[in-house]
Amino acid sequence: MQLAEVTGTLVATVKYEGLEGVRLLVVQPLDRDQHPSGDMVIAADAVDMAGPGELVYIVASREAALAMPEPFVPIDHAIVGIVDQVVRS
Amino acid sequence: MQLAEVTGTLVATVKYEGLEGVRLLVVQPLDRDQHPSGDMVIAADAVDMAGPGELVYIVASREAALAMPEPFVPIDHAIVGIVDQVVRS
Amino acid sequence: MQLAEVTGTLVATVKYEGLEGVRLLVVQPLDRDQHPSGDMVIAADAVDMAGPGELVYIVASREAALAMPEPFVPIDHAIVGIVDQVVRS
Amino acid sequence: MQLAEVTGTLVATVKYEGLEGVRLLVVQPLDRDQHPSGDMVIAADAVDMAGPGELVYIVASREAALAMPEPFVPIDHAIVGIVDQVVRS
Amino acid sequence: MQLAEVTGTLVATVKYEGLEGVRLLVVQPLDRDQHPSGDMVIAADAVDMAGPGELVYIVASREAALAMPEPFVPIDHAIVGIVDQVVRS
Repeated sequence: MQLAEVTGTLVATVKYEGLEGVRLLVVQPLDRDQHPSGDMVIAADAVDMAGPGELVYIVASREAALAMPEPFVPIDHAIVGIVDQVVRS
Repeated sequence: MQLAEVTGTLVATVKYEGLEGVRLLVVQPLDRDQHPSGDMVIAADAVDMAGPGELVYIVASREAALAMPEPFVPIDHAIVGIVDQVVRS
Repeated sequence: MQLAEVTGTLVATVKYEGLEGVRLLVVQPLDRDQHPSGDMVIAADAVDMAGPGELVYIVASREAALAMPEPFVPIDHAIVGIVDQVVRS
Repeated sequence: MQLAEVTGTLVATVKYEGLEGVRLLVVQPLDRDQHPSGDMVIAADAVDMAGPGELVYIVASREAALAMPEPFVPIDHAIVGIVDQVVRS
Repeated sequence: MQLAEVTGTLVATVKYEGLEGVRLLVVQPLDRDQHPSGDMVIAADAVDMAGPGELVYIVASREAALAMPEPFVPIDHAIVGIVDQVVRS
């Protein structure tokens, strides 16, 4: 999983039918210092509670769809948790 | 999923049989400022409505095939929506 | 899928048993100007017609195996079409 | 699989329900000289014994979930072993 | 698949139970000139014959596990052949 920050929302009227009702957020992956790293990604919100500016962790590929109510949807990134704290050891 | 722009069409007469009838478009992934980022990708059009110049979002890997009428096809990128707007927060 | 050029053939006598009879070609992924981009890849030829110098498109990951006669083979790249033309819009 | 070092722990109260009880560690992938390489990753601890500072190897993508007690969880990286030694030949 | 050279062996006493008995080698992916390219990878030896210094080709992701006697193991890279020759065309 990867640490990311929610930076926006995606508005799309034409979408693949299985994706209706799925909330799509724009997230920016972060590096170990929580600075932006790499391109933004469009992720489905599997916890249904993530909002703009929040620190989340996202899962990629086939595993993303497993986080959705209906697992056979064409989704490759999903938000699966909201981060309270990253404890460095 | 990734934001991308449709930039062309692929013409191929010899193709794996399961791919006949699948519309293949050339798309360019975009970064957060909607500038080209990385190499172009050949994606199947799962919404059947994407046209040149349009802003779309694409899904990658196994999930792409899930967007097709016949899910056991060798496809690793599919267009699953047309973007109206990206709302920054 | 990705655009690539066939650049060679792989000769291997010791191979995983499920891969016997699978034709393995060396391909070079190309960027939007059809220049080499990234490292070469070893791909199974699913159309059984691709030859040296030809422009093809390849599929990656689990989807590659779906293009083979026997889908449970350890293959992660397959040639699924020969490109006639890339039409820019 | 990839060599990595455990560098911290992730604390998250809101998480996708299938992930409750899964121990999430922050790991830093390493290169051949065991120096940090690329961004940190959040991995589930499948051996249940990995601790801060330890050298581990992680598995990515769908295979990560296979290492968990319940394989249909949205996890894309898991620690599957603790490394005693890397023998160079 | 990718061309790689076997460069070492991984010794790990604590490992995920499904991985006991799996021989893990350290391999270095190579570019088209057979020079090192990218980070080393830990791969399971599916041909059971690969040794230090040998030129092999590896398969990644879910396909790697398909090369193992027991396909539901958390493995994401496997050596599936030993290369005799790469013929350039």
